[in-house]
Amino acid sequence: MQTLSVDLGDRSYPIYIGHGLLRNPDLYTPHIKGRQVLIVTNETVAPIYLDDVKSALTDYQVDTVILPDGEKYKDLDTLNLIFDELLERRHNRTTTLIALGGGVVGDMTGFAAASYQRGVNFIQVPTTLLSQVDSSVGGKTGVNHPLGKNMIGAFHQPQCVIADTDTLETLPLAEMAAGMAEVIKYGLITDAEFYEWLQDNVASLMAGDAESLADAIYRSCDNKAKVVAQDEREGGIRAILNLGHTFGHAIEAHQGYGNWLHGEAVGAGMMMAADLSRRLGYLNKDEEHALLRLLQAAHLPVKGPADMTCEDYVSRMAVDKKVLDGALRLVLLKGIGEAYITSEVPRDLLDETLIACGAKP
Amino acid sequence: MQTLSVDLGDRSYPIYIGHGLLRNPDLYTPHIKGRQVLIVTNETVAPIYLDDVKSALTDYQVDTVILPDGEKYKDLDTLNLIFDELLERRHNRTTTLIALGGGVVGDMTGFAAASYQRGVNFIQVPTTLLSQVDSSVGGKTGVNHPLGKNMIGAFHQPQCVIADTDTLETLPLAEMAAGMAEVIKYGLITDAEFYEWLQDNVASLMAGDAESLADAIYRSCDNKAKVVAQDEREGGIRAILNLGHTFGHAIEAHQGYGNWLHGEAVGAGMMMAADLSRRLGYLNKDEEHALLRLLQAAHLPVKGPADMTCEDYVSRMAVDKKVLDGALRLVLLKGIGEAYITSEVPRDLLDETLIACGAKP
Repeated sequence: MQTLSVDLGDRSYPIYIGHGLLRNPDLYTPHIKGRQVLIVTNETVAPIYLDDVKSALTDYQVDTVILPDGEKYKDLDTLNLIFDELLERRHNRTTTLIALGGGVVGDMTGFAAASYQRGVNFIQVPTTLLSQVDSSVGGKTGVNHPLGKNMIGAFHQPQCVIADTDTLETLPLAEMAAGMAEVIKYGLITDAEFYEWLQDNVASLMAGDAESLADAIYRSCDNKAKVVAQDEREGGIRAILNLGHTFGHAIEAHQGYGNWLHGEAVGAGMMMAADLSRRLGYLNKDEEHALLRLLQAAHLPVKGPADMTCEDYVSRMAVDKKVLDGALRLVLLKGIGEAYITSEVPRDLLDETLIACGAKP
Repeated sequence: MQTLSVDLGDRSYPIYIGHGLLRNPDLYTPHIKGRQVLIVTNETVAPIYLDDVKSALTDYQVDTVILPDGEKYKDLDTLNLIFDELLERRHNRTTTLIALGGGVVGDMTGFAAASYQRGVNFIQVPTTLLSQVDSSVGGKTGVNHPLGKNMIGAFHQPQCVIADTDTLETLPLAEMAAGMAEVIKYGLITDAEFYEWLQDNVASLMAGDAESLADAIYRSCDNKAKVVAQDEREGGIRAILNLGHTFGHAIEAHQGYGNWLHGEAVGAGMMMAADLSRRLGYLNKDEEHALLRLLQAAHLPVKGPADMTCEDYVSRMAVDKKVLDGALRLVLLKGIGEAYITSEVPRDLLDETLIACGAKP
């Protein structure tokens, strides 16, 4: 087992990475302060892992909420199912919520923990590669609104994260790919050496090699933690974590949440960011092609959906959180491992990129 | 105009108290960082004060949400009306929400501000005595759940509070009384001298004397601010602000939210706390009777509703947030101006108090 410490002053917490962790009581106990626990999971994950987690928590009042599976249920109504259970089972302020599942379960459980009685503790047990590398670090929690993704939420840090690589054995290929999008992102934005390692190891990662996966998870979380530690509330540098996401959110919003996996949309979005970076004179053709090959090896889309126009992108991107006082801000690359933020992107170049990446004019 | 500074480090903010403040642009401008403002108010307050506030904000994109009036609308569905407007009108992270109304509007607007894009700024413009003395300080925001009051929320401090005493001229007597319950509470828990002043000035306060009201608001906010500054997240001492509230919440929940005004329930709840304190040997009969006279002069109930049994109280109190790991914690008085917190209340004494204050055995 590897342990990574996310350093956020009195909100610091450990991430445990390895196999067989899910059912280990010693990883939970130090992070539960009361006698009550609520496990929040979904109908896909529950049959596989719920009993394992319960078996590690025999000393507590353990209650369970099983949510419907999918991004389209990441809304206020579904969130309320968690509050219903907490109140029906009389959970008090010392309760601990446990998020067992992917990013949707993690984001909703985290927001429920942030809001229940104005804030209780929670533990993340991410069961997808995406949530292990992405939702584990950063404290972002929330739900979607029909007009925008993650528009309602809070910053709320977990007590610990338990990333059990065994859970990746049951993960569908498309979800492995979605996780790889974020893994690749960490290389692109801050860690050229890791990016090179990924090009050499993408095949074994996609084949599910546990040791490579643990290394990739550790390195991804470490890279993200270093960015977040500099900027916990996303005032500045932290925005580089959104490489590919402004494009990606536009795709997800236009297609209807859940029809494109978040990571897939980010994959196509990173290709757009790289293409636009090249047009602005920063990346060369070889670097752009290397990214294309890496995304393809990770089974990720390199173009957006065929039915979106440039205007579809731009109007969706205008409502994205990354818009500051009307100016569209984008995360682009000065080179591999070096992201930057700009609000000065000529509309004609943006359109050229969108069209090159599959959009209709 | 009097200005009180609430001292919370980098979350400190001013409370402006006086008349004619509502339409003064200079009080708003320093506390609005972007170009967008959303005024949240309700259908009762909007016809009287909305235009005044708008007239002070001519330099901004001003949007408005008018909520239905009443505690029964303090829920997630109504909260969502605020998010709808923010997203439809494309408010970004630099937006400022303005809560124009009583405690319900303030609590909901504050929680919307805490949650929209994981946190934006807000300004409180409380238009009731209760919200001027109570919601102005403390940063508590949130909504109710059918199984418990204020169960979903956040701690989120405003940029400033504008307490215009002119708004009290249009306030119904029952709402003046509800505000007085909290004013009296500040005397009871920490400020014997203020409590004495209240006994001398209750008549002019209830008659709407502007100068006395401004003094009472200042003194109440100052007392509350001193308690909150010691304990922003309610880990300990802050709980004394709940004097009368655990009883009061039981009354409100049992009667259905909105049927007893919050302040009225707190009035009866404080009488119960005083009665129980006397039975525990702390207050004498004279002090209890003086409180009874003060509450009556403030047009407040001194007994609970006639249809509640002791068991109704106890079961409702058990789900209240003040319960820690199963033990019922109550705020009681060691003397006038001296509150304390205890989890050691014999059930028989509690029942005696409840019966003395109107409950059925």
